[in-house]
Amino acid sequence: MNYKVLFQPSGLLAAAEEGMTLMEAARQNGISLNAPCNGGHSCGKCRVKVREGITEQYDAGPDIAHLSPMTPEEKLLLDSDEQNGQIRLACFARVSGNITVRVLDQNADEENIILESGKEKQFEIKPAVKKYFLRLKKSTLEDNRDDFSRLCDFLKEAHPELKGEINIDYQVLKTLPDILRKSSWRIAVTVLYGQEIIAVEPVTEDGLYGMAVDLGTTTIAAYLCDLNAGRVLLSDSMLNPQISYGDDVLSRISYCLMNEDGLAELNRLIIDTLNGLFQRMAEAAGIAVENITETVLVFNTAMHHIALNINPGYLGVSPFPSAISCAVDLKARDCGLRIAPAGNVHCLPVEAGFVGADNVAVLIAEEPYKQEKMRLIIDIGTNGEICLGNKERLLSTSCATGPAFEGAQIKCGMRAAKGAIEGVFIEPGTLEAKLKVIGRTGWRQEFSRNFVQGICGSGIIDAVAQMLKAGIIDSGGKIQSCPASARIRKGSDGKMEYVLLFQDQGADKDIVINQKDIRAVQLAKAALYAGARILMKRMGVEKPDGITLAGAFGNYINKHSALAIGMFPDCGAESIVSVGNSAGIGAKMALLSVEKRREAQETAEFIEFVETASEPDFPRCFADAMYFPR
Amino acid sequence: MNYKVLFQPSGLLAAAEEGMTLMEAARQNGISLNAPCNGGHSCGKCRVKVREGITEQYDAGPDIAHLSPMTPEEKLLLDSDEQNGQIRLACFARVSGNITVRVLDQNADEENIILESGKEKQFEIKPAVKKYFLRLKKSTLEDNRDDFSRLCDFLKEAHPELKGEINIDYQVLKTLPDILRKSSWRIAVTVLYGQEIIAVEPVTEDGLYGMAVDLGTTTIAAYLCDLNAGRVLLSDSMLNPQISYGDDVLSRISYCLMNEDGLAELNRLIIDTLNGLFQRMAEAAGIAVENITETVLVFNTAMHHIALNINPGYLGVSPFPSAISCAVDLKARDCGLRIAPAGNVHCLPVEAGFVGADNVAVLIAEEPYKQEKMRLIIDIGTNGEICLGNKERLLSTSCATGPAFEGAQIKCGMRAAKGAIEGVFIEPGTLEAKLKVIGRTGWRQEFSRNFVQGICGSGIIDAVAQMLKAGIIDSGGKIQSCPASARIRKGSDGKMEYVLLFQDQGADKDIVINQKDIRAVQLAKAALYAGARILMKRMGVEKPDGITLAGAFGNYINKHSALAIGMFPDCGAESIVSVGNSAGIGAKMALLSVEKRREAQETAEFIEFVETASEPDFPRCFADAMYFPR
Repeated sequence: MNYKVLFQPSGLLAAAEEGMTLMEAARQNGISLNAPCNGGHSCGKCRVKVREGITEQYDAGPDIAHLSPMTPEEKLLLDSDEQNGQIRLACFARVSGNITVRVLDQNADEENIILESGKEKQFEIKPAVKKYFLRLKKSTLEDNRDDFSRLCDFLKEAHPELKGEINIDYQVLKTLPDILRKSSWRIAVTVLYGQEIIAVEPVTEDGLYGMAVDLGTTTIAAYLCDLNAGRVLLSDSMLNPQISYGDDVLSRISYCLMNEDGLAELNRLIIDTLNGLFQRMAEAAGIAVENITETVLVFNTAMHHIALNINPGYLGVSPFPSAISCAVDLKARDCGLRIAPAGNVHCLPVEAGFVGADNVAVLIAEEPYKQEKMRLIIDIGTNGEICLGNKERLLSTSCATGPAFEGAQIKCGMRAAKGAIEGVFIEPGTLEAKLKVIGRTGWRQEFSRNFVQGICGSGIIDAVAQMLKAGIIDSGGKIQSCPASARIRKGSDGKMEYVLLFQDQGADKDIVINQKDIRAVQLAKAALYAGARILMKRMGVEKPDGITLAGAFGNYINKHSALAIGMFPDCGAESIVSVGNSAGIGAKMALLSVEKRREAQETAEFIEFVETASEPDFPRCFADAMYFPR
Repeated sequence: MNYKVLFQPSGLLAAAEEGMTLMEAARQNGISLNAPCNGGHSCGKCRVKVREGITEQYDAGPDIAHLSPMTPEEKLLLDSDEQNGQIRLACFARVSGNITVRVLDQNADEENIILESGKEKQFEIKPAVKKYFLRLKKSTLEDNRDDFSRLCDFLKEAHPELKGEINIDYQVLKTLPDILRKSSWRIAVTVLYGQEIIAVEPVTEDGLYGMAVDLGTTTIAAYLCDLNAGRVLLSDSMLNPQISYGDDVLSRISYCLMNEDGLAELNRLIIDTLNGLFQRMAEAAGIAVENITETVLVFNTAMHHIALNINPGYLGVSPFPSAISCAVDLKARDCGLRIAPAGNVHCLPVEAGFVGADNVAVLIAEEPYKQEKMRLIIDIGTNGEICLGNKERLLSTSCATGPAFEGAQIKCGMRAAKGAIEGVFIEPGTLEAKLKVIGRTGWRQEFSRNFVQGICGSGIIDAVAQMLKAGIIDSGGKIQSCPASARIRKGSDGKMEYVLLFQDQGADKDIVINQKDIRAVQLAKAALYAGARILMKRMGVEKPDGITLAGAFGNYINKHSALAIGMFPDCGAESIVSVGNSAGIGAKMALLSVEKRREAQETAEFIEFVETASEPDFPRCFADAMYFPR
């Protein structure tokens, strides 16, 4: 027998033969578990929590019964309060049925910290889908209109605002005669854009749900919304499982180009992941996933193409054309998303090449096109997108910041998760460091054993700014030797490095910033600054009226540090505001408001994309910006 | 290993395990072969012809290699010119690969005779799909529009008649970037209704094909059309395999009601059959089935629902409402039809309950709504549909004629196929009969051994009219005893019968018309006449200006006989015209002309459906019409 194992929180689904251990199932399916003893039944780290209750999606037995019984050997490795069968070790537990487990320990700690706040904006709640409640007169010999005409006639009579022609999705039509009669002609009708009937249910199904998704290169954030009430019921997020195919979009595009089934594979992975996420959120909210009638997706252009199963290969080479830039509405069933049978998928428009629908989402959340002030809006994810403008004119560009600000390609870099250094202060004289670490309060120099595991983006910027201020690096970014401090030393690569935290201060290794890290930060900040510079020049402004930082990263960043290393154009720190995950907010707005969708389409057409690669000034701007601050 | 065996001309697909004989595969899948010896390797009747050449749809080997070698025993049962391996006996040949075979002998003889003529009408060729040839400028850094916008811009520039918004089918969008570049930006774009791009191909794919289908209760007729040239490339027809679930629509509706998966089963059967038919026609025309971009379907309301996988159950009970009556456009992929990936399926509108899209097709072919004269249009298939009217007013009704006119429920009845009596002349004095039989010329009294197998619809009407004229039956339909003639005798049921042909005159049994057959004809003709009568009364006319007979049946019928038994209202035989398969002609017209589709929709709305069941006069009309002539 073959079974399925769903690993949470990743949402990855593994196939497992009867009798295979969870560890074997995970490995065979490319899912990594924390196992220092390498499955040797000795470390007790590969703990998983068996999902409580019933796994309705597969079969009716409780999950706990779908694993081999616990052996005394396994019990020895568990704490006494963990021996009730809910906590198991993946190297021991053998599969005997479909099962969902939550991976504990390291992986659980690594769950991403996603900003959920971000001020919500004022806008009229007017979703693209609307539910109408009707009581039809049943058909008689004297009035034997066909079911669909009867439905339309009653719908239009009760709701004269529905003016134009109304169609019905074929999947809904198939069920129409039975639903009408089984519900005794009292029905709830869901209409998309006032034009297409996409659900007919008994009148008791009064909920109307939608899902807004910010599908990032690294993180997926999803918001289950009550479309009647116009509010978020539940938010959830998870790592994009495609990170095992590369941290940035270019490596994913390469994967699609280099492997015959590469696109199909990446597409399947993301669709399966979204389906798993939707299922888990619907279960948590106590609704059926089929009650979700619409989903709005925002993503960068590469993720857009991969999620829609469109070859992203041409995005990677000049002139970087996308397959489609306007908003796309498609049937969820056509792209494999499991929501309502006739559910709609709305993808916000793409601006151009690398400036994707996620940036459009940021714009409809921030609404620069309604403002007088000339703001620079910077969204730093795995790529950087920059917009400059106001209601008169909007310019945008993308910059290849690389993933340095996300902690990738940095020697001790990591994502913003528990155990990551997020703030750095270096005492100018002694060159000693005080650190702020996620999961611990205040500034400290010592941590509990092995607690600190690396440094995340905001910590890196802080570190570089502080190293500059303390004279550890010069304006060219070179680490200066300083025999007086044990923290400045030659690393294993023979290049200089600065030790932020020694292992015996509570790290799992010496946490350092090395010369290569500094170079990566220089390249990233130069790309960002030069991009902004090109836009300002094109716009004819010397200084923006303010800077808006979008993305979770912007919330954690120390503005003073960012200004100190010259990431942004000169602008008082008080003019820099962080707005959180604007892309997610924009996605929610588009889900809740057709007006916002209109704004999105208009903005995508209104904005002028500036291709920095074809700007003659760009190389010089970029080279200048490599210096600290510039 | 499991293989597939496609049996032609039925188009039925059977699953076969390795080593199974073709006979076993056929039986296991409910396909009947002619095998008097019951698979005993002795009669040599189960001959099949192996399809020549390559079965591209399955794999690359010639079909002949996918059967076990011929044994000496099998050779003995074949003629000497049949021993080259192309002709095999199903009871011997064992399956070793996917294969297509054509069943010979009896089954081949039984292929239906479908009328292909029928005068084609004048109308403007303007299909719903149109192909445009474009040469795009490739994208550059200066002009890096997304692929879809580029395509639309070039399309609209070259064809200003395409005014509104243009969408693209998602399946086409997925392939767009690759197609554009692989075809060096020279492409053929197929647009549906001037609104949606449903195919983008290299410019070399210049053909544009569509399929019109008249999906009858008994027979499926399909017309593969060249939409550029506006002509039929190929016609083909086959029995509707659903006849094994009952001859008439009511028995199929019952099957759906009585069996949990009944609808799914019947739906799958018809869709598979259409796919097989399309495949075989495309192969015969030398095109890929994916090059068919649109199909127009006409059918009665029950077949409409079953083909669209909609519960037909409510059609069978008062007030007989259909699920939808307006024209339906849907993606072929959504209903399982394998044509172009984004191909369109257009179903003509339904008039009401039992007056289906096939009758609308008859009307757009006959155009009574453009005429001054008050014509009665009668379409006799398994059900009878009647229309009466002109450009001022159109009435329609359906009559439960039952399948008597098709030879079903008649003791010696059969379909209009080789060996069927289609004409009868009875000498008034001697009561001897002269017969006209399909497959033989002229009027005869003797035939070669076992040649005559039964009597088809036109023969039945002739027989009854002649029996009436010769005094064998009275005006009440009772067969009169006549000891002088051996042809009038008591049948095995104790009731009287008239022998049309004795077995020793060349029949496979005595071919008779018995009292029960006469009653069936009386019921059928009374239903038809009473229906016409009700319409005439409602319209306020005493006599129509003429009668149009649609359907293959109308072509074969002897008008004088039909008038003699009172099938139609009184009207000179010269005013009765037969127009052949008007439903098929209407389907072709709708495929070739959007104007005809508009007419179809308008007609379906314009026509007034008269429900005879709720007419107080109907029972008396019906009872009166039971008499001969009335």
